[in-house]
Amino acid sequence: MADSNTSLHFGELNSDEQLFRMRHSAAHILAEAVLEMFPDAKYAIGPPVDDGFYYDFELPRSLTPEDLDALQTRMTQSVSANLSISGEQISKESAREIFINQPYKLELIDDIEDDTVGHFRHGEFQDLCRGGHTETTGQVGAFKLDRIAGAYWRGNENNTMLQRIYGLLFTTQDELDEYQELREQARQNDHRRLGRELDLFSTQEDYGPGLIYWHPKGARLRIEIEDAWKKAHTEGGYDLVFTPHIGRSTLWETSGHLDFFAEGMFSAMDVDGDDYYLKPMNCPFHIQIYKNTLRSYRELPMRLAELGTVYRYERSGVLHGMLRVRGFTQDDAHIICTPEQLDDEVDGVVNFVLELLGLFNFQNVSATLSTRPEKAVGDSAQWDRAEAALKDAIERAGLTYEVEAGGGAFYGPKIDFHLTDTLGRKWQCSTVQFDFNLPERFDMSYVGEDGESHRPFMVHRALFGSIERFIGILIEHYGGAFPLWLAPVQASIIPIADRHLEHAEAVANKLKQAGIRLTIDTAKERMGNKIRRAQLQKVPYMLIIGDREAEADAASVRTRSGEDLGEIVTDNLVEKLITEIRSGQQNIV
Amino acid sequence: MADSNTSLHFGELNSDEQLFRMRHSAAHILAEAVLEMFPDAKYAIGPPVDDGFYYDFELPRSLTPEDLDALQTRMTQSVSANLSISGEQISKESAREIFINQPYKLELIDDIEDDTVGHFRHGEFQDLCRGGHTETTGQVGAFKLDRIAGAYWRGNENNTMLQRIYGLLFTTQDELDEYQELREQARQNDHRRLGRELDLFSTQEDYGPGLIYWHPKGARLRIEIEDAWKKAHTEGGYDLVFTPHIGRSTLWETSGHLDFFAEGMFSAMDVDGDDYYLKPMNCPFHIQIYKNTLRSYRELPMRLAELGTVYRYERSGVLHGMLRVRGFTQDDAHIICTPEQLDDEVDGVVNFVLELLGLFNFQNVSATLSTRPEKAVGDSAQWDRAEAALKDAIERAGLTYEVEAGGGAFYGPKIDFHLTDTLGRKWQCSTVQFDFNLPERFDMSYVGEDGESHRPFMVHRALFGSIERFIGILIEHYGGAFPLWLAPVQASIIPIADRHLEHAEAVANKLKQAGIRLTIDTAKERMGNKIRRAQLQKVPYMLIIGDREAEADAASVRTRSGEDLGEIVTDNLVEKLITEIRSGQQNIV
Repeated sequence: MADSNTSLHFGELNSDEQLFRMRHSAAHILAEAVLEMFPDAKYAIGPPVDDGFYYDFELPRSLTPEDLDALQTRMTQSVSANLSISGEQISKESAREIFINQPYKLELIDDIEDDTVGHFRHGEFQDLCRGGHTETTGQVGAFKLDRIAGAYWRGNENNTMLQRIYGLLFTTQDELDEYQELREQARQNDHRRLGRELDLFSTQEDYGPGLIYWHPKGARLRIEIEDAWKKAHTEGGYDLVFTPHIGRSTLWETSGHLDFFAEGMFSAMDVDGDDYYLKPMNCPFHIQIYKNTLRSYRELPMRLAELGTVYRYERSGVLHGMLRVRGFTQDDAHIICTPEQLDDEVDGVVNFVLELLGLFNFQNVSATLSTRPEKAVGDSAQWDRAEAALKDAIERAGLTYEVEAGGGAFYGPKIDFHLTDTLGRKWQCSTVQFDFNLPERFDMSYVGEDGESHRPFMVHRALFGSIERFIGILIEHYGGAFPLWLAPVQASIIPIADRHLEHAEAVANKLKQAGIRLTIDTAKERMGNKIRRAQLQKVPYMLIIGDREAEADAASVRTRSGEDLGEIVTDNLVEKLITEIRSGQQNIV
Repeated sequence: MADSNTSLHFGELNSDEQLFRMRHSAAHILAEAVLEMFPDAKYAIGPPVDDGFYYDFELPRSLTPEDLDALQTRMTQSVSANLSISGEQISKESAREIFINQPYKLELIDDIEDDTVGHFRHGEFQDLCRGGHTETTGQVGAFKLDRIAGAYWRGNENNTMLQRIYGLLFTTQDELDEYQELREQARQNDHRRLGRELDLFSTQEDYGPGLIYWHPKGARLRIEIEDAWKKAHTEGGYDLVFTPHIGRSTLWETSGHLDFFAEGMFSAMDVDGDDYYLKPMNCPFHIQIYKNTLRSYRELPMRLAELGTVYRYERSGVLHGMLRVRGFTQDDAHIICTPEQLDDEVDGVVNFVLELLGLFNFQNVSATLSTRPEKAVGDSAQWDRAEAALKDAIERAGLTYEVEAGGGAFYGPKIDFHLTDTLGRKWQCSTVQFDFNLPERFDMSYVGEDGESHRPFMVHRALFGSIERFIGILIEHYGGAFPLWLAPVQASIIPIADRHLEHAEAVANKLKQAGIRLTIDTAKERMGNKIRRAQLQKVPYMLIIGDREAEADAASVRTRSGEDLGEIVTDNLVEKLITEIRSGQQNIV
């Protein structure tokens, strides 16, 4: 039951109290500026957010980007004036008089349960406010009005549509600049944009949103990753299996999914009068393979692994490229073992996570240990045993980690792993999760050395989580410029003129025989165009073939970043590329 | 739309007129014997069948195996008497008198539309019969009463249950013996039996029949075959893709599947008020990838291939192990090309079929060409063009083939390929199928060299057809004794005593590093038991490790067929096994 969480954080934001105050004050200064520009403006609410602040207004006309510039200037004046910001509790009655022409404020006042309400001011500006501000308007740090968006009053689409102004705010100008740069880079790296530009995948909204169509280049990327995964799992003592995508209601009743996961499941299909469901998880199927025969302790640990495609219902509004979808492939495994094997198995999984993630140049990996919640199934001694095994394994692996006390699922404690990508963003992918529920529900057992029947431990784990989501993350992490071993097209061979085609094909054949993926660009265009095209497609190597290269059985080699590696003899080129590919894959050997 | 036909033929039966007559006469002789044994017997119908004949009776008691022996003896007497068999047309009235005590015959007479009915006799025995007999009872060849089964009168479960006696019959005793031997071998090789004994797969009837759970060893077999398939396709210029398992009704309306294939589809799932269906075919998805952008003739031929798991509704009564299932993985590809490319592409596919099937030691491959039926979509000139391409390709490949005139699907002509397995049975697996329907329905096009928009040709093809069914066939074909490259476990290392475990592990490590799949049998049992166990599991090689082998860094090698290969030094053993694995895989290089 490793879940495919899709949370996304921008770096380690400095979310401390002071930044909150600066952003909150800036929201007031923004409202002040808007009221100066539009004296009839009705102002609604203006909270601080993760990267700054916003404020919602009802205005006589739509705002333009030029308005933002003017407002930014006015705000700067208020900051320069360094006005004192002060607040007090006042009676609702007084507040209603102050905000007599502000219907949104009046509605807010009505909703406040206390007898008094917060009232803050700086200069002429007044606001209804719970407080949490800088002392003066001069202390708000570096900000930039960012964009305008529509927003319904109180988020309810039956209410008036207001205009929301977003501002970015950080303590220093450097931090603000860095944030904007990272955000721009993230926009450039957006996997949906790159997925389209590099022809990796698509979704077909008309035929069902949230379902990924892997185009040839995206599929190649996926196959390289899946092959590495399969090789590592086979060598790591896992047994690969395949199980169906559907199961009869009886299976989901026994597993309990129809009770506790029904909202995440697609509706039933009728087959001969029985209900069948698309699988949202692979676990019950792996358990059937385990239960297919009587098991002995000699057969344990059993590690059943599958690249199992599951389907989960998500509201269409939350779907997001490959990061949040309705169908995805879990790189799932279930480890079934005896109590004596527990520590070794958990150690093994934690190290395996680090080993496989090591392939992808993430900046660092940290962990969260989630422990027993109040409502939990299973024996508390077993929970203790499992939590200790998880904690010891993280510590032995030398990982930094946090403990989320009580944050485990009702069926067992878990470790979540967090990756930091090239843009400093954190992603949760790998999960190691105990399960005290399903072994009980499916009455799993093994015959111990004592000849008696015992209940095994079961650990779910996924390293990538979801293949779709992980590759979405990789696309953004690499900005589409995949390392050679992953690149769907590894080399573009560019003959300068038609007479160089013959040698181009000779070079291509030698590379192909070594398993290198390439194209020959035979378009009747200038070499510069061909190089640009290959660079836009982020092809790692361009191999240019002209008279000199044909003569020398060589190619002039350029990288996608524009580096000129000069002329390299074909055989040496094959060796160079193979060495680079092997080195990219080598962490898993 | 390559379909997964599950027809199954036993060898090339001599189904000519004479054999038909012999079997038909034997049915009469059986009825004669039964009437002698049970004078009150009511006899119903007794036709010839593929491997002999049967006759249905209502009898005063249940038959026993001993009865079959007695009946066989009585029949032999009638054969020895060499009685003349004669027939004539008689009036229904006369027939009713003759069969006055035979209610089934009376019912049959009532149903005959002609004024007269056929009446046949030999000795005292009389039957209602359309004819088609040997001249005498002495000419019926070699027969053997085989088994007893229940059968409802006219196959209707509301009618009386009769007792059906089956007999086998062939022209000579040798043919009969050979048939029985092959049938016994087929029973031994039954993939359901071997699937269980070798722990390859299971179905879980409670959780949905017709759905295959691939256990670790079966999954390994599948992975080896899929990897070979992927490698061959990549080298063969195919682009691999992945597509969803579900699609919204809009997709299946456009494709027409909801009109012409609804019975083969699972019922709909409701998603946000829309109907979604499990895919019964991959075609519409591949077409979306093609249509994702405007295509130029420069991009053609485009060959999109997928190991795509599809789900089709089948009545539970027809499900049969892996051979007929409700979920299966098609090794599907769609070739989209210009008219000019047609011949090369069809040639390429036919050769590719032969190349891939060549991996599996089938005795021979033949083809059936199915041409335009009366009701067909598409332009007749295109049909002619496509049929010619298929015919020429088969002939160029030197295949024997039959033409089934008018046997094509409404959307295009096709070639089906038939394999003959080690037991002489024929199986249909590979299909190459034109489609003039979907390109039209999905308005597929490409921009030609002339700058105009054209409709491409589209060819569906599957080489294995269904991975499940193909592997089911392979299990029976090899009787579970897979060639080394496919064997889930390639070697069983058998240390004679505990003190040999160290060397056993050293040998295991060398083999594992070379990628060889093995087990070490550490059970505290006699060597003979361990060898027997490995043989029962059809493990190709047993590597026995005792004092002498430990001394010489070697193993004593036995094959599963019992051959003793003597002592082989570990390094040489690795080389020997690798060579054998490569040679098994080499047809696809």
